[in-house]
Amino acid sequence: MTEIEADVLAANAEFYRAFSARDVAAMEAIWAVEAPVACTHPAWPVLRGRRDVLISWRGILENPEAPTVEVRDAVVHAAGDAAIVLCREIVNGSPLEATNVFVRERGAWRIAHHHASGVAPSARGARTTGGDTPSAFDQRN
Amino acid sequence: MTEIEADVLAANAEFYRAFSARDVAAMEAIWAVEAPVACTHPAWPVLRGRRDVLISWRGILENPEAPTVEVRDAVVHAAGDAAIVLCREIVNGSPLEATNVFVRERGAWRIAHHHASGVAPSARGARTTGGDTPSAFDQRN
Repeated sequence: MTEIEADVLAANAEFYRAFSARDVAAMEAIWAVEAPVACTHPAWPVLRGRRDVLISWRGILENPEAPTVEVRDAVVHAAGDAAIVLCREIVNGSPLEATNVFVRERGAWRIAHHHASGVAPSARGARTTGGDTPSAFDQRN
Repeated sequence: MTEIEADVLAANAEFYRAFSARDVAAMEAIWAVEAPVACTHPAWPVLRGRRDVLISWRGILENPEAPTVEVRDAVVHAAGDAAIVLCREIVNGSPLEATNVFVRERGAWRIAHHHASGVAPSARGARTTGGDTPSAFDQRN
């Protein structure tokens, strides 16, 4: 693992730590300030702009019934001053797939985009590499 | 709009042209060769690796009941040699949110990651900027 990959994975872990701990200040600190920010919560239209994205996270984290979240299988694809982390979230016991885009701002990796979406029960046992996926695309076919 | 943004939006348009035209060869040509590739289809686990991603697209495009797709509201966030396009897909009449990550390889912008997810009927009228989103997070709360 490169130093960049390790740094990006650490930023991704901090994002989920803030989420899990309902730490609003830490959540605000991890989002990019200079780069455009967006967020696609599960089953929801994309939110554009830092203000609205942070309002949404405040709403989630301050909710007394905020969900539990665990993160698994994070991998990072670095591309210059940007990097993508793909990971599996377990939110209140249900699997979600997440795409997190990080940018480097003044030496620190910050999240610029988060997109999470649920995995259908019928697809949860599917292999994600190495084979055909005949039942994968119910929503598209 | 910068030249980079225009080039990335053109690559994004080509991705959807290939999708809509069921053009398997064009779809294969638009995916990155050097960068790691991944794809999260709606409600499906992430697929990692160019081979499996292209198998999935071949399955979609060769299906006699392949869906129709339109794309709207594409915006690009450039970050060095990578760029994100956020756009709304209308697939068989239903709205999906898409995150498309492009990388520049030998001068050409190619897609390295696609993540699409449905928008719940209850959220389809929501404002995506400028306001609170009280009912946004049913799946998270």
